[in-house]
Amino acid sequence: MRLRFRANGGFSIPLLLGIDIGGSKLGLAVGDDAGRVRARLRRPAQLCGDAESDVARLIRDAAQLLERAGSAPHDLAAIGVSVPGPLDRERGVILAPPNLPGWRDVPLRDRIAAAFDRPVYLENDANAAALAEWRFGAAAGLSDVVYLTMSTGVGGGLILGGRLHRGQADCAGEIGHAPVEWDGEACRCGLSGCLEAYVGGAAWTRRLRERTPAASRVATLAGGRAAITPEHVVRAARAGDAFALEELRRFVDYLARGIVRVVFTLAPEAVVLGTIAVAAGEDLCFAPLRERVTAHTWPVLARSVRIVPAALGERLSDYAGICAALEGLGVGRDA
Amino acid sequence: MRLRFRANGGFSIPLLLGIDIGGSKLGLAVGDDAGRVRARLRRPAQLCGDAESDVARLIRDAAQLLERAGSAPHDLAAIGVSVPGPLDRERGVILAPPNLPGWRDVPLRDRIAAAFDRPVYLENDANAAALAEWRFGAAAGLSDVVYLTMSTGVGGGLILGGRLHRGQADCAGEIGHAPVEWDGEACRCGLSGCLEAYVGGAAWTRRLRERTPAASRVATLAGGRAAITPEHVVRAARAGDAFALEELRRFVDYLARGIVRVVFTLAPEAVVLGTIAVAAGEDLCFAPLRERVTAHTWPVLARSVRIVPAALGERLSDYAGICAALEGLGVGRDA
Repeated sequence: MRLRFRANGGFSIPLLLGIDIGGSKLGLAVGDDAGRVRARLRRPAQLCGDAESDVARLIRDAAQLLERAGSAPHDLAAIGVSVPGPLDRERGVILAPPNLPGWRDVPLRDRIAAAFDRPVYLENDANAAALAEWRFGAAAGLSDVVYLTMSTGVGGGLILGGRLHRGQADCAGEIGHAPVEWDGEACRCGLSGCLEAYVGGAAWTRRLRERTPAASRVATLAGGRAAITPEHVVRAARAGDAFALEELRRFVDYLARGIVRVVFTLAPEAVVLGTIAVAAGEDLCFAPLRERVTAHTWPVLARSVRIVPAALGERLSDYAGICAALEGLGVGRDA
Repeated sequence: MRLRFRANGGFSIPLLLGIDIGGSKLGLAVGDDAGRVRARLRRPAQLCGDAESDVARLIRDAAQLLERAGSAPHDLAAIGVSVPGPLDRERGVILAPPNLPGWRDVPLRDRIAAAFDRPVYLENDANAAALAEWRFGAAAGLSDVVYLTMSTGVGGGLILGGRLHRGQADCAGEIGHAPVEWDGEACRCGLSGCLEAYVGGAAWTRRLRERTPAASRVATLAGGRAAITPEHVVRAARAGDAFALEELRRFVDYLARGIVRVVFTLAPEAVVLGTIAVAAGEDLCFAPLRERVTAHTWPVLARSVRIVPAALGERLSDYAGICAALEGLGVGRDA
């Protein structure tokens, strides 16, 4: 691997190709370890149900993007892929993610490596997002960080002592499935009372569609109960709707229960929350959440933990794969 | 620091002096990084209420022990002290541990360093115990370990990626204060619903003294309700006493709630449980606990985590201080 001398006196590793595979969207980016993105591509995932074709199309996209970036495969230090779990990272195989229909035991690492003759590293999407927020986002400069995706499900990633903590079977950070009610509501994972069963986008959406009064502003905004999503609750709450405000109070309460436990367990510098929390914002999520967490932790812990929104937004898709590549290469973060 | 050549071909660092300060007992040991103890001293703590005198006596004991071990202070690579929190590790000051009456803002590190002219490292007792079980006990050979003291309180220490994770304000591992019932029973820490309020020795003892039927075997064994401790519950349960068995079922249930959350958060290789759990043993604690945890986690996690008793027993007192010294010196563990 060639090292390049940087203006600031350090060395920069060559380019990285990042691939971010989601159930609905796909993102590819060519960039470096300082977060400079040279070219990007975003498109709907449009998975066809045949993984082999999906992967072939992905590889064609990557080749085109590289060309557009004025680069060749040999310019790449590595290729990183952020992908929904479960995956077998050791073997580089995607197992059978519920979000990727038709993908079952897909040897993604070897397929991509064969196409470009470069090292390929897979990372589950929550870990990749945690790495991205830690390198380039809300947790830049910190060493002990808990990240929660807060989207359809509640995925999590842990950076501890400046390193990704994966745990056994890459399951560390599965805080979304730690119970917030013992023997509580059924979770799609098969257990009950999981944090995700209360604050995950899919579970919350289902609840809202069942429970929202048909005449409420939430239903009106959505154009009918069957179309309600948490986003409509946020908008209705901003307009003062009582049902929406109560739903958000419940969301914050359960989120606080999960975070309090994480804070006592890890005493992190920051808890970074993604999608839904970002949408609910300071007024409807972060301010009341900090208050709830503070009321249920020791002052020394409440003072030392920042509970903050993820900062990357749409740019997460650029960085998730690049960060998976950097992690695979064992590249530390600049101080 | 002189390095000594070992028979197995590695280098051994010179001797370490370990001091283990508890509210009721004091332990001192001179040993090396391979866990060979050359001399030890144990005595009741007999704290006199004046920290200055207590520390002076401690230093005299240490000097005598060194002499007995045939060593001089300059033979020591470092001195480690395991001590109840809260402490200010950076400044080497014991703040005001509830278990050490009269000790308030005691500059223990500098006092001991002045007496022996060697580097001194303080560690809170739960972290020191976690390090000891990881180096020399139940978690030897593992990298990701959660240790819970399970004595008067429920202290905890985390070894992650083969390193002690201290977290902000050294508060990582305070799993004893993560709630197992939201807005549950009052805890002596001021919060409510803490794991410690259900399974900590002090809380459980108080509950037992209030609730045990006066005619029960538990009360008889203790010679009266006012003398009941969890130990009597264990003995009565072994004899088939229904009240005792129900109390242990409750103990295991709450412990499982705490451990399930830790397992989803950290996906550790092992959860090592101390004192009370060790006393309750395989039949009354570990077997039913594993069953409860398995029922509330994913199979991949249940399979990958060992829930085991601490192995050091009384020897913990030899190793806690020595491990604090090794940690302070930044000495890794042999593979």
